[in-house]
Amino acid sequence: MPASEFEAVPAVETDSKPSPAGLVVMKFGGSSVADTERILIVARRLAAARERGLRVVGVLSAMGDSTDELFTLAREISPRPHERELDMLVSVGERISCALAAMALLDLGHDAVSLTGSQAGIVTDTAHGKAKILEVRARRIHEALDRGAIVLVAGFQGVSTEAEVTTLGRGGSDTTAVALASALGAEACEIYTDVDGVFSADPRVVRGARKLDAVSYDEMLELSASGARVLQLRSVEFARNHGVALHVRSSFSDDEGTWVTAEESGRMLEKAMISGIAHTVDETVYRVEGIPAAALLSALASSHVNVDTILRVADEIVFSAPSDDGETTSRTLDELGARWSADADLGKVSVVGAGMKSHPGVAATAFETLDANGIEPLVVSTSPIKITCYVRRSEVDRAVAALHEAFGLGELAPSSSEPQGLARGRT
Amino acid sequence: MPASEFEAVPAVETDSKPSPAGLVVMKFGGSSVADTERILIVARRLAAARERGLRVVGVLSAMGDSTDELFTLAREISPRPHERELDMLVSVGERISCALAAMALLDLGHDAVSLTGSQAGIVTDTAHGKAKILEVRARRIHEALDRGAIVLVAGFQGVSTEAEVTTLGRGGSDTTAVALASALGAEACEIYTDVDGVFSADPRVVRGARKLDAVSYDEMLELSASGARVLQLRSVEFARNHGVALHVRSSFSDDEGTWVTAEESGRMLEKAMISGIAHTVDETVYRVEGIPAAALLSALASSHVNVDTILRVADEIVFSAPSDDGETTSRTLDELGARWSADADLGKVSVVGAGMKSHPGVAATAFETLDANGIEPLVVSTSPIKITCYVRRSEVDRAVAALHEAFGLGELAPSSSEPQGLARGRT
Repeated sequence: MPASEFEAVPAVETDSKPSPAGLVVMKFGGSSVADTERILIVARRLAAARERGLRVVGVLSAMGDSTDELFTLAREISPRPHERELDMLVSVGERISCALAAMALLDLGHDAVSLTGSQAGIVTDTAHGKAKILEVRARRIHEALDRGAIVLVAGFQGVSTEAEVTTLGRGGSDTTAVALASALGAEACEIYTDVDGVFSADPRVVRGARKLDAVSYDEMLELSASGARVLQLRSVEFARNHGVALHVRSSFSDDEGTWVTAEESGRMLEKAMISGIAHTVDETVYRVEGIPAAALLSALASSHVNVDTILRVADEIVFSAPSDDGETTSRTLDELGARWSADADLGKVSVVGAGMKSHPGVAATAFETLDANGIEPLVVSTSPIKITCYVRRSEVDRAVAALHEAFGLGELAPSSSEPQGLARGRT
Repeated sequence: MPASEFEAVPAVETDSKPSPAGLVVMKFGGSSVADTERILIVARRLAAARERGLRVVGVLSAMGDSTDELFTLAREISPRPHERELDMLVSVGERISCALAAMALLDLGHDAVSLTGSQAGIVTDTAHGKAKILEVRARRIHEALDRGAIVLVAGFQGVSTEAEVTTLGRGGSDTTAVALASALGAEACEIYTDVDGVFSADPRVVRGARKLDAVSYDEMLELSASGARVLQLRSVEFARNHGVALHVRSSFSDDEGTWVTAEESGRMLEKAMISGIAHTVDETVYRVEGIPAAALLSALASSHVNVDTILRVADEIVFSAPSDDGETTSRTLDELGARWSADADLGKVSVVGAGMKSHPGVAATAFETLDANGIEPLVVSTSPIKITCYVRRSEVDRAVAALHEAFGLGELAPSSSEPQGLARGRT
């Protein structure tokens, strides 16, 4: 029956979204797989993409707070758990969610297979707890995709060049997803989260915060570095360096979220001068004297402390680092014999926007606004597309709201849906 | 200083126990690693063995009921979870306990490393959920031992010849331990559990139950098959086939437990005619008609149902199988088109002892005892060293106590310590 030969080829429905060249990477964060009910929802979402004819790779985080619970177990055993063993321990959570999602997909009648980071060929360096992806050896993924299976890859983890299990650090599942999207030639990497996208400010703090339709990599980098935790900083860097288009969207709706792409991508980026106001209260500001900057930064890098803002005035060096790394940072400073003090009672508020490159008045507006609200910027740092002020922690929310209003961020077409949850939720 | 050269060689304290040729495998069950406090106790126990100069391999089960919780998650997702994915899921528990124990040992100043079943080179067949160990490729274990490290191996799991994660079935950590003891040339495999050893009957049922100092492999096999769950049946078979001496002992004391060795080992085995009375209530008895025995047993084997007792009278076949496998068994029987019935309200009581080979009166005593207590043995099966009776479930405890007394098992030197916990606890 030669006439039916062509009909036997399954019809591939083309997506109305930009062509993902047949392959999509879909990443779901911890809150999207918090319990078995939500994992079933995720499975149906992956299945729907497969049924539209796409090749589908899902990257899952661990269920809810399960990774935190593993860290708690480790701390019950040891005040400073051995890093290699800690990675063996905390990498199990993603394996659980992936295996459960694969079971659900198999029950839905789809071929599916879950892979650990190691099985998926995510090869990293040997920096346990903060490993960097060196290479993706995707043989097993390709084999599974070629036979039509949906592939679930455990996020946040890989295997080192010394054949040890490694993890990529907080939010590392985003990086896993972007690396896979790049290695597999996906045109889009969809990051599903518990909010509708990237907002002009934290909706918890600013009621009129608006969902952004698109931002550039650079803006997203500044937003991520400044406290908007919808995407992990490194994953945005990776996406920019490899030209992977990111689509940050809600696990709970089919609405378009926020696209993160190159400025020159042709996608309509925000025309506003300022994209958003980001903030974080998770950093400690250190003031150090008596140590050359190079020696200081090199020692902190060896200790894997992620230094953020760095300022230098005369002999004094001011830098910020995650409060979580406080113990390591203090130890490193002591070992250097530095004179130092720390202030953990500060918050960081950043005004981010590619438009400010050509608008020198932005800094003035920002400082006038803070001044009018009686808020003193204690440490200030700027980049071409960002102005960051450290203020007293108790004044952070007021500063964000005032700046959001001063730059008119809530005035453009307001988001049709109320933001669900928190723009700063961990992913 | 040539005179001190020899003193520099660390003194190896020889153990008072039979020489383990420098290497000991120590296996700890789920209740021994139920929380981080107990894991610290296990770590100190492993460290103490290392400090006596031994090369130490620890095999750990998952913490407490954590594997059961993973099975529950799987059932929330799927009524019949895909076996490959189920193994990916339920193999994480042992990885957690091993990583935590390794952290604890490192804090105690010992070198230590945790290995998954795959990393430890436990190669199995592809029967997910009930895999059999084919080979131990112990390169990584040897490397770690050679540098002086204590090696923690995740029990219950391996990697299949198709590079998939497999599990060995309930109690599989015992089998992991015995296989490693054999492959590494350990002369003893220590099985730490929450009871003091193997008892003449379940101490919960028979107050005067006595700890046995030593039993033969064959007796232990019959005891294990008959419901004494201190050791998994397969691990005893493996130990017998490879001549691995087992020492079943308490996690909570340094007392000698029960040695399981060859009858001809020279170790003083029990001289008593009967070693113990075992029982279980976890089996269902099936009566089947209209199917040739070979076809029936082959179909059940294909379905991985572990058939226990098999009897045949005229056209009727009677067999028992774990009640846990009830669904699979029923399906298999239906697919064969058999006429069948099942009785799950029975319990199995077994009298076990190598001595009965030369004492034909044992069976008579057993049946007289049951009869005198008004208990009817509904199905009976015997081996050279065992008599098994299926009785009504409600009569099991009375039957065990009556037989224990009839064979005078409580009369010999009573155990100095009260049994802690249950002889039938899962390991």
